[in-house]
Amino acid sequence: MQIRAAVLEEFGAPLAVQELELAEPKAGEVLVRLVACGVCHTDLYTASGADPSGYSPTVLGHEGAGVVERVGDGVTDVAPGDHVVTLFSPQCRECEHCRDHRTNLCLAIREQQNQGQLPDGTTRLSRDGEPIRHFMGTSTFAEYTVMPEIALAKIDPEAPLDRACLFACGLSTGLGAAMNTAKVASGSTCVVFGAGMVGLGAVAGCRLQGAERIVCVDLSEDRLALAIGQGATDTFVGGAGAVQQILDMTGGFGADYTFEATGNVNVMRQAVESARMGWGLATMCGVAGKGETLDIVPRFLITGRRVAGSSFGGVKGRDQVPQFVDMYLAGDIDVDAFVSHKLTLDEVNRGFELMEAQDGIRSVIDFA
Amino acid sequence: MQIRAAVLEEFGAPLAVQELELAEPKAGEVLVRLVACGVCHTDLYTASGADPSGYSPTVLGHEGAGVVERVGDGVTDVAPGDHVVTLFSPQCRECEHCRDHRTNLCLAIREQQNQGQLPDGTTRLSRDGEPIRHFMGTSTFAEYTVMPEIALAKIDPEAPLDRACLFACGLSTGLGAAMNTAKVASGSTCVVFGAGMVGLGAVAGCRLQGAERIVCVDLSEDRLALAIGQGATDTFVGGAGAVQQILDMTGGFGADYTFEATGNVNVMRQAVESARMGWGLATMCGVAGKGETLDIVPRFLITGRRVAGSSFGGVKGRDQVPQFVDMYLAGDIDVDAFVSHKLTLDEVNRGFELMEAQDGIRSVIDFA
Repeated sequence: MQIRAAVLEEFGAPLAVQELELAEPKAGEVLVRLVACGVCHTDLYTASGADPSGYSPTVLGHEGAGVVERVGDGVTDVAPGDHVVTLFSPQCRECEHCRDHRTNLCLAIREQQNQGQLPDGTTRLSRDGEPIRHFMGTSTFAEYTVMPEIALAKIDPEAPLDRACLFACGLSTGLGAAMNTAKVASGSTCVVFGAGMVGLGAVAGCRLQGAERIVCVDLSEDRLALAIGQGATDTFVGGAGAVQQILDMTGGFGADYTFEATGNVNVMRQAVESARMGWGLATMCGVAGKGETLDIVPRFLITGRRVAGSSFGGVKGRDQVPQFVDMYLAGDIDVDAFVSHKLTLDEVNRGFELMEAQDGIRSVIDFA
Repeated sequence: MQIRAAVLEEFGAPLAVQELELAEPKAGEVLVRLVACGVCHTDLYTASGADPSGYSPTVLGHEGAGVVERVGDGVTDVAPGDHVVTLFSPQCRECEHCRDHRTNLCLAIREQQNQGQLPDGTTRLSRDGEPIRHFMGTSTFAEYTVMPEIALAKIDPEAPLDRACLFACGLSTGLGAAMNTAKVASGSTCVVFGAGMVGLGAVAGCRLQGAERIVCVDLSEDRLALAIGQGATDTFVGGAGAVQQILDMTGGFGADYTFEATGNVNVMRQAVESARMGWGLATMCGVAGKGETLDIVPRFLITGRRVAGSSFGGVKGRDQVPQFVDMYLAGDIDVDAFVSHKLTLDEVNRGFELMEAQDGIRSVIDFA
């Protein structure tokens, strides 16, 4: 079939919305009609050429939600008409990692996905007979996509898809960092560095875990206001004095849990140094620049702090994304506040511009 | 009373064994007659002047074991004749940290101890009427010492004190890193970097936790042979290729638990990078040089590795040191293998020389 999609032709240049061919789903694959897709920093990171593993041409986009149109042989978990959220982090339920409660890093199709291929080593996307590689196994800046069944989370059809799509990446990453990776204990003190999509998700996750005090640190007063809406009890504008400010707020000890959601290694270091002596856990959610390192004075570790990281919030997507969507429908997560702009597919580059201008939290492409 | 003690007069110079005055124990304090004391790297670290918080003159020594001679008012937990191990890391059982299972960093007397004073802000040591500061709250390179009751672990009198003293620092640090900090799970794969006292203790701790595979990495074949005696299943001589070697041994994944027991920040980094994707925990036990940092590529964290640190192995000393001694008496820990040299107090500087020459694991001063 012919579809319209936003193609990364050249790093650093705007995406080109054009017609491509999309082949029918093979065994274990699903054809999804996209209804909505968030524009995420990872798309921009690859489009800019900063990602050393990036390639072109490819169809970007990974924060998608839509409706199952057709399924290939052997697909049993979803059927035409089902509402789904796309998962760049699949869950095969069979590999060593899927069977282990400690990690969500499914091993089933990592290699092929990293090379821009579907699990059988080929692509469904093409242009004039030439294969076009998939991106993150999703390629959701498009009217339709073909994805493996194991990379789709079936959700309650009551959920508006222009909200549900945010659970495909940023929001789940933040929620999961607090709920899965850190497993925030009720009554604790948390600090979240960064009030973008991931940081705000982490604030919400800390609140849902019953944290008593949630401090959010960001450079923007507007975003800090959103953090209060998600449950932050204290906020302040960050900078070089942030660690001391947190120590002052916590009797000199630091916070039980800190979260870094900026990708800035200096902020990561602040997250480590403001974690509590004795048992503080600093969880890194952001993706750092190439070659950058988080430099830790070992004394902070020896005196009882721990450091962890989180990919997609430790979320096993097929199991937990539907649960998150249910929590949204139950009124426990205020997703509406995150959608700052609605765009058409043709306006996808505007989404990148808004992100670079730090205007709003999330632009969502509406395919309707 | 007059006692003989090894005094740090000047950084970088040999300790001077001389006569000092030791006052009677005050309320909550205990006079201990030392029987044995290990010579530990931390003593040398301070003697050399490398420790930025070091001071002189002071009586060094902290890996002590002896017999209670007299007790001050209100002391209820030990009585004359009891055998005790000295604790540089006390356990008051009342502070916020002592009442919390997550940390052993007792807060009761930290400030005074760091300043070389007993809890009431004075010293019991003096010379010609001038106060001499205590070291680590212990000052066990001496025939007698006065220490707070909360810093003494009462042990089974059957245990030879020239073995029991090793539980005062290095051995407990290694055992506890595996048993308390990492809580090694049975059947897992562990890697221990460094086969000194702490690393060998960590090997023993991993064995006691039921690890299936324990890889020890060191630069000395002799020490690696000792590691096998403590339960290591594989050993190799370390270096730049150590991470790759561990990945090759673990199907490309890395180890469930890694331990760093060298104090070298480059080895710390290897411990992080050889921990398993998904859930590997890297535990730092060594004390790094001033100004040095452990530099972590955040990708290692994002893909599921965690980093922790351990001070005195997370051991709550009054509770757990007696248990360790019981395990030794039951034959579960081979302490004899660690005692490579016996010295008199007058030979204390020889202990430092042996350490610098990396000759043996532990020199123990015998006061008998």
